Amino acid sequence: MVRAIEWRESPTPHIRLIDQTALPAVETYLEITTVDALVDAVLSLAVRGAPALGATGALGVVVAMNQAAAEGWSDDELAAQILRIRDARPTAVNLAVGADRASAHVSEGVEAVLAAALELVAEDEAANRELSRLGADWILARTGKEKVRVVTHCNTGALATTAWGTAYGIIHELHERGALDYVYADETRPLLQGSRLTSWELTRDEIPHAIEVDGAASSTILRGLVDVAIIGADRIAANGDTANKIGSVALALACQRAGIPFVVAAPWTTVDLDTADGNDIVIEERPAEEVHSFGGAVVAPEGVTTFNPAFDVTPGDLVSAVVTEKGIAEPAASSSPEPLKDLISR
Amino acid sequence: MVRAIEWRESPTPHIRLIDQTALPAVETYLEITTVDALVDAVLSLAVRGAPALGATGALGVVVAMNQAAAEGWSDDELAAQILRIRDARPTAVNLAVGADRASAHVSEGVEAVLAAALELVAEDEAANRELSRLGADWILARTGKEKVRVVTHCNTGALATTAWGTAYGIIHELHERGALDYVYADETRPLLQGSRLTSWELTRDEIPHAIEVDGAASSTILRGLVDVAIIGADRIAANGDTANKIGSVALALACQRAGIPFVVAAPWTTVDLDTADGNDIVIEERPAEEVHSFGGAVVAPEGVTTFNPAFDVTPGDLVSAVVTEKGIAEPAASSSPEPLKDLISR
Repeated sequence: MVRAIEWRESPTPHIRLIDQTALPAVETYLEITTVDALVDAVLSLAVRGAPALGATGALGVVVAMNQAAAEGWSDDELAAQILRIRDARPTAVNLAVGADRASAHVSEGVEAVLAAALELVAEDEAANRELSRLGADWILARTGKEKVRVVTHCNTGALATTAWGTAYGIIHELHERGALDYVYADETRPLLQGSRLTSWELTRDEIPHAIEVDGAASSTILRGLVDVAIIGADRIAANGDTANKIGSVALALACQRAGIPFVVAAPWTTVDLDTADGNDIVIEERPAEEVHSFGGAVVAPEGVTTFNPAFDVTPGDLVSAVVTEKGIAEPAASSSPEPLKDLISR
Repeated sequence: MVRAIEWRESPTPHIRLIDQTALPAVETYLEITTVDALVDAVLSLAVRGAPALGATGALGVVVAMNQAAAEGWSDDELAAQILRIRDARPTAVNLAVGADRASAHVSEGVEAVLAAALELVAEDEAANRELSRLGADWILARTGKEKVRVVTHCNTGALATTAWGTAYGIIHELHERGALDYVYADETRPLLQGSRLTSWELTRDEIPHAIEVDGAASSTILRGLVDVAIIGADRIAANGDTANKIGSVALALACQRAGIPFVVAAPWTTVDLDTADGNDIVIEERPAEEVHSFGGAVVAPEGVTTFNPAFDVTPGDLVSAVVTEKGIAEPAASSSPEPLKDLISR
């Protein structure tokens, strides 16, 4: 299994990131030792995926402290630089959660911060394994099938997390149980995380699959070609409204019409109980170039305006299950206005 | 206004096609004098769009007859070559309708066939103008707005027709009336007819617009950014089920949830009353390369399987209006099982 993000001590302490913008053609790694380089990696999506961004936020505080020591920053400067990391992408709550958790230990010194960050990384892998087991159980029980056909969107595998994956983790778990028939992976424009990354991971894991354009997902569902849709999340509100990669809500609408479950898989850190519903989720808009070009080829008239939101919000009433390592909430079937809050208060 | 397809007599009689695979970078034309070249142009999508394919089918019979005369084909050989043109793309009913209409005159000689084909071309432009007026009236009445914001999918403009356009024709008509606020044009993977062609036409017509990835369309609708979705069609069944470019049904599902109209615009020739519903519509699957790459850039692991249907079918109960030059059917609101048949029996 590939590691998207790791802490390494030699030759100098650094974050080692696989450069996801170069996949699937080239497997190359970035060695991050400065805040500037880290923020660049986040903005270019060299590192992406909610859980991997959580690790990035936490380990980024260590990078900032090391740079502060080397360059003699004041406490205010260090705090400002940690804030730059924390807020590099507004929709991804995990980046802030990771940075906040590590920076709570700044007064204890860099070793304590590193320990807190590595603890978060270890917890993420454990959470992924647990939610994958829970999700596979739920899907097999709900569909009543011995083998399921799955559609997924974007990349939620080892590349998107610190290890194993979330939605992809459930797919992997189903495969290991012999309960997976086939996967349809949406290519996920504009940055093609599905065809570039998910298909790369599925191929490595020898999981039978096809890639399809995002526009095909709705009819793949309506034509009865799949039994369940499984996606990840960037932020989940208390009512189950789920921000995820642009295009996700199309799958949810089709699943509702087809009468098959729409499953959101994410570690508990992605749940934001302070956000009541999707109206309070800021939707990041990304640069026009992503839509103007395709794999380096210019595909639109020069200078044309683009609308390029990175995420959409799937209303909670379309979400059959939110699978976390703490348990499963069922917003679509719930009579509660805050099914996610109820999950932890059980 | 650009002409996607024209008949020209000199230097030798030929069909002149704008090569749509080269747009928006290069404006170049193909001069078609053989059946092989015509079928290649259809399969490569150098010419595309249901009404333009109708003209292609009709004028293609003239090309076949000229080639038959030059090369001394038997009647059987001529009939077989006309059938190749007729069936080059299975979902596009207009190609067959155009070929059948022209080939009914084969026994009268090539001049009669050409006259029949040119009559079809003239009728197509007149139909587009009329359905655009009817569609604009209907949309302004239904939305109750003075200016509307529109989302559209694929290309249905002058490039897709013989002139003016269908869904695009309504948009153009609204613009000329001062009743158009803004257009969101889906890029339309895999072949990007939206960003390459629709945006090129909108730019030429000075219509304010943005392009967006196909996955954005659902949330653009759910967020209240548009008042109506307008698409074309490749085949419309008697019950209103509509085959159109892959991704169309995602817009229909979102419009239903948002409570805004989903409008299908097409000349009457696109309506196939012999097809009871969408289950009888053959969905063409296209080559893997379209999903693997674009503009020479490979974006997926080598050899990965693709699922690449060219069309999806929007169920009639999601179609607020089918706008044709003969009038408007409202399948979603109709209690009839065959609202399209009722339209002409009025």
